Amino acid sequence: MTSTWGKMLKLTLFGQSHGPVVGMTLDGLPAGHCLDLQRLRSFTQRRAPGRAKWMSMRLEEDEPQFLSGLKDGLITGTPIAALIKNQNSNNEDYQNIRNIVRPGHADFAIRARYGEAIEKSGGGHFSGRLTAPLCLAGGIALQILERRNIHIGAHILAIADIEDEPYNSFELTKEHLLLAGQKKFPVNDERAGERMQKAIDTALSDDDSLGGIIEGAVLGLPAGLGSPLFGGIENRLAQILFAIPALTGLEFGSGFASAKLRGSQNNDPFIIRQGQIRTASNNHGGVLGGISSGMPLLFKVAIKPTPSIAQEQHSVDMVTMEETALIVKGRHDPCIAPRAVPCIEAATALALLDMMLEQGRI
Amino acid sequence: MTSTWGKMLKLTLFGQSHGPVVGMTLDGLPAGHCLDLQRLRSFTQRRAPGRAKWMSMRLEEDEPQFLSGLKDGLITGTPIAALIKNQNSNNEDYQNIRNIVRPGHADFAIRARYGEAIEKSGGGHFSGRLTAPLCLAGGIALQILERRNIHIGAHILAIADIEDEPYNSFELTKEHLLLAGQKKFPVNDERAGERMQKAIDTALSDDDSLGGIIEGAVLGLPAGLGSPLFGGIENRLAQILFAIPALTGLEFGSGFASAKLRGSQNNDPFIIRQGQIRTASNNHGGVLGGISSGMPLLFKVAIKPTPSIAQEQHSVDMVTMEETALIVKGRHDPCIAPRAVPCIEAATALALLDMMLEQGRI
Amino acid sequence: MTSTWGKMLKLTLFGQSHGPVVGMTLDGLPAGHCLDLQRLRSFTQRRAPGRAKWMSMRLEEDEPQFLSGLKDGLITGTPIAALIKNQNSNNEDYQNIRNIVRPGHADFAIRARYGEAIEKSGGGHFSGRLTAPLCLAGGIALQILERRNIHIGAHILAIADIEDEPYNSFELTKEHLLLAGQKKFPVNDERAGERMQKAIDTALSDDDSLGGIIEGAVLGLPAGLGSPLFGGIENRLAQILFAIPALTGLEFGSGFASAKLRGSQNNDPFIIRQGQIRTASNNHGGVLGGISSGMPLLFKVAIKPTPSIAQEQHSVDMVTMEETALIVKGRHDPCIAPRAVPCIEAATALALLDMMLEQGRI
Amino acid sequence: MTSTWGKMLKLTLFGQSHGPVVGMTLDGLPAGHCLDLQRLRSFTQRRAPGRAKWMSMRLEEDEPQFLSGLKDGLITGTPIAALIKNQNSNNEDYQNIRNIVRPGHADFAIRARYGEAIEKSGGGHFSGRLTAPLCLAGGIALQILERRNIHIGAHILAIADIEDEPYNSFELTKEHLLLAGQKKFPVNDERAGERMQKAIDTALSDDDSLGGIIEGAVLGLPAGLGSPLFGGIENRLAQILFAIPALTGLEFGSGFASAKLRGSQNNDPFIIRQGQIRTASNNHGGVLGGISSGMPLLFKVAIKPTPSIAQEQHSVDMVTMEETALIVKGRHDPCIAPRAVPCIEAATALALLDMMLEQGRI
Repeated sequence: MTSTWGKMLKLTLFGQSHGPVVGMTLDGLPAGHCLDLQRLRSFTQRRAPGRAKWMSMRLEEDEPQFLSGLKDGLITGTPIAALIKNQNSNNEDYQNIRNIVRPGHADFAIRARYGEAIEKSGGGHFSGRLTAPLCLAGGIALQILERRNIHIGAHILAIADIEDEPYNSFELTKEHLLLAGQKKFPVNDERAGERMQKAIDTALSDDDSLGGIIEGAVLGLPAGLGSPLFGGIENRLAQILFAIPALTGLEFGSGFASAKLRGSQNNDPFIIRQGQIRTASNNHGGVLGGISSGMPLLFKVAIKPTPSIAQEQHSVDMVTMEETALIVKGRHDPCIAPRAVPCIEAATALALLDMMLEQGRI
Repeated sequence: MTSTWGKMLKLTLFGQSHGPVVGMTLDGLPAGHCLDLQRLRSFTQRRAPGRAKWMSMRLEEDEPQFLSGLKDGLITGTPIAALIKNQNSNNEDYQNIRNIVRPGHADFAIRARYGEAIEKSGGGHFSGRLTAPLCLAGGIALQILERRNIHIGAHILAIADIEDEPYNSFELTKEHLLLAGQKKFPVNDERAGERMQKAIDTALSDDDSLGGIIEGAVLGLPAGLGSPLFGGIENRLAQILFAIPALTGLEFGSGFASAKLRGSQNNDPFIIRQGQIRTASNNHGGVLGGISSGMPLLFKVAIKPTPSIAQEQHSVDMVTMEETALIVKGRHDPCIAPRAVPCIEAATALALLDMMLEQGRI
Repeated sequence: MTSTWGKMLKLTLFGQSHGPVVGMTLDGLPAGHCLDLQRLRSFTQRRAPGRAKWMSMRLEEDEPQFLSGLKDGLITGTPIAALIKNQNSNNEDYQNIRNIVRPGHADFAIRARYGEAIEKSGGGHFSGRLTAPLCLAGGIALQILERRNIHIGAHILAIADIEDEPYNSFELTKEHLLLAGQKKFPVNDERAGERMQKAIDTALSDDDSLGGIIEGAVLGLPAGLGSPLFGGIENRLAQILFAIPALTGLEFGSGFASAKLRGSQNNDPFIIRQGQIRTASNNHGGVLGGISSGMPLLFKVAIKPTPSIAQEQHSVDMVTMEETALIVKGRHDPCIAPRAVPCIEAATALALLDMMLEQGRI
Repeated sequence: MTSTWGKMLKLTLFGQSHGPVVGMTLDGLPAGHCLDLQRLRSFTQRRAPGRAKWMSMRLEEDEPQFLSGLKDGLITGTPIAALIKNQNSNNEDYQNIRNIVRPGHADFAIRARYGEAIEKSGGGHFSGRLTAPLCLAGGIALQILERRNIHIGAHILAIADIEDEPYNSFELTKEHLLLAGQKKFPVNDERAGERMQKAIDTALSDDDSLGGIIEGAVLGLPAGLGSPLFGGIENRLAQILFAIPALTGLEFGSGFASAKLRGSQNNDPFIIRQGQIRTASNNHGGVLGGISSGMPLLFKVAIKPTPSIAQEQHSVDMVTMEETALIVKGRHDPCIAPRAVPCIEAATALALLDMMLEQGRI
């Protein structure tokens, strides 16, 4: 597998959704930073399930247990190891459909990759549950970056046809970024959020699911972070963001929309503001040639609709090699986008901290 | 810098657009494969400039010179080193605007990152010219994959509002993939291609530029390639694809469109075809949970409009720290998408070969 | 820190000697191998303390707890995470000497490296206790290699002036290699072992300690493993072996003795034996140009005398910056060599398994 | 292959001894340092052949040609690429013995590893000739470290039974380190050097060869460089030093001799000197627990006798699989130790620079 990530940091995620724990080891953090464990807990709670009708009803307290690397919240510089117990693992839901591949899931691909051994563990290492330790690691990175005045936030930009107000590069503040994080449903425009939740409810009652688009932003990133070619901010963010299950697309700044613009429209004029070089617009999304420009970093990711739906679906039994109908039982989020928001923030924080360490800036 | 890429392969790109050469070293290739050097040359010619009105008139023969690692086309297993001469380097175009940051370019970000030292070399390591040795390395990877019956192709899916016919997962053949590569303007639908070229001509005569969308496809990829979390096909492709300058977005399968679909629409039913497990549709783009499904791999990238345009633009002088008008001289492609097509194919081949080697499949 | 190791495997060691646990995560193992957990336990017991007079009396059961990656002993392919509890951690011995640097220890170097944060955790990540999870990981690697008929053993070649019988390349069998591992005091010649143990007893009663030399051997390694330059067997073994505390030297084959030989003496003539190319002597220790020759791999490591001794020593108080006398209390092995033997085997197994995976041979 | 090395730096060595060039790419150097190219040339000349009776008469000017990354000696931060021409490549000497494995050489191991493809290139990537670009890269690292007041030197400590005066940790100066480098035969004691040269002459006239021991030293290394476990100075130095052909052993400080000492003898008492924590002796060789102590770093390497000797040797024909006599023609150093001295310095400089960059100290 490649459940280990990072150049200066070394993060390993382990565990299965239906085993006793999930967890992580995180090596390479700089010594001497003191974590606010209460805030860390609040951050990881943002992705925890069971808090709303549109979430999986699987209840997990997701209280992390630190085994090493911290002393009363102080980062000692030795590897952090942390566990999160699976308090509500119920493997039975999957027993009866073990051999039937679930549409939109990796069941078939996993068997082609690992053979039958992997199934004996429930295949649960591929689960979204692994984002719990990812958020724990990312929550630590977020606090280290904040101390350097680098702030990361994300919100749901769209679900179905309902759109939230996008971030505005020229009005965005760290308070605004933090605000979305404190909301149960992380949007800028509350009314859009209410309509989105209704759409999710409707999909759920239709035994169906929805996808969404999440916008991420980073404020305070100094100009000059990143490298050309393979070490650019886009390369590094992409590499870790695509670890989040259900992520199907990623764009920076004007992204796919830039493909329809002319250069004269897409180019951001340089200007002087308060003695610093800035741009008058931010189509480039804060990154040029792989390197941060000093403008807010802006990107969007696409989240596909949850593949597990309660409707009957057409599929195949891997053992009998016959086509068959499938009903997926169990508890599933009808839309994973709300809980993916903190995962995006966590992954972004890890990638940027790794780059800051690589350039000797932290 | 991070001009070195790969896990099993180690590719380093070097040189500047305004120095004597660009080149690459490629370590880690399996010994014993015999390259068709003529086909390799043809492949790299596809990104060479100066072949059409809508290309930069900078003439480069781009004839690679191999220094090591090949013996009469046979890969010996030792590192390949290759040079491509810059026959038409003209630094004067940039001399008069050295201190004025070009909108849409990395000039300012580079100075923030590397200080003044980098400028003395003309900053040309950040140039699209570095994709010449990338294509050379990728052209080698393409041939090794082809021998395993894995075929990679790409075409221009859209420029401005003009759209080419997308790849059809269920009709796509390797012959079709190769065909696009043999065209001067790589599209599926010739008429769409003609309209695109006209649009580019118009933009050029307006002293402006255009972006575009490129679709890539891989046929013959076995099911079971890739790993969950950080080693997925998406992670690996993203990491290298974003090394291509001007790339602002990337999506797999239905990508951003999936965000607006319901699960029942986006899920691809599994079926049996000729005794093998396949899907009835290909919204997942051939990759599930980071692992190939055996269906054609499909992805799209967004290319921003060329930032260098002949119009006067608003910018800043980095030395005087004053706002100023800027006219960028020199020879620039009004649309880089056509020449980016082989770069996409090359980067894809390198990423997939690296993964095949990692899994011991080659 | 760099508590993470490996190219195909990713091993992270975590924990402190005076914290609740030490442990490891091990990512990248091939799926489908079934471990003999009883043998794994026996292997790790070989480095456990408290089993003899010449060992630290610190009692640790060192019973590993697996959190993920195994299902009834079957390797599922997902990352293995395992904990070993510290049942007998007593930090008080160190409290009164916290600021006085212990001669031969890394106390001062650690403070220069990490500042004061690290001390709050007792500094115990630098302890030999971290070799417990290293042995656990290595014990797994040993079993996987054995299944491929690759056998690894080690014995104490020398302590003080007493020498054990060295391995004989032409008579060595896997049974012989395993035998040493079953002995409480791993030597080939029992009488030499008894004299060594007496020498250790004498040193202990003198409030002093001893070093030693360990010889390692690998049988069954196929010819052709390893790469020239940076990926040779020597490079890879050296990189992980020097992670074992107290290791001060490493040599392959005739090693330092080769420096005094002439080429005509040191060169091993090639011969044919049973239809295979072999050498008539094994001064090269089974590795030529970084690559295995098919002969037994032979190497030696030097282990320095345990720095913690009960005698009064001269040292410095890091806070007052004054010279002072120091008495180190606590329980220490008067000679670490016997317990280092399984650590050498474990590290060797990990390095070779990583290389086998890299070359696609497992 | 694994001809690529480094964590922050990425060094790739390429070329064959019997091809047109050898060369290297070096990525990751910090921008802004100005090299003294004349001194760099002098440094690389120290390993060039043909300068004395005891050297191979193969004449190579070894004049490097820089293709990128430098502008009038200034390091621009982009990857450096450099070529060294093989002006005197004569493959004929080897043609008639192509299938007969040379004792002490990697011929057989290489064929087992790479198959026949590699031979078509003369197998020359495994040659000591590849240390020419290694010295070029290391010579650059040496200059960067010197600017930080870190000085590296090495000398021949022993050849046959003749011993040079070892470095004295308490009298060593940077002038002394540089001095050895300026001598044709790098020893501290000229008379010992003369006797060594005579011994080499005698071996040569006997159609035989000699090995030797080289001692390396680093002055000015700050305390606190390195990490425990896998990132220690010993681990990192070992990993690159064993890339030097003919190196069979490595020890730090008292090394293998420490195995015969008691703790009370081997421990270095800490003292205060000029307000700084130092040790009264230097058995630890400047490194404790993988981390530099601030004392001079001292290590020794064993160099085996040159395997190519003019005597008839017993060997095997890989094609006929029959035993046969072999006479190796060609020009060979009867003792490689003198020319290995700058290689040791170069490799050490690269490893330490990589670690300094990793810890953000440069």
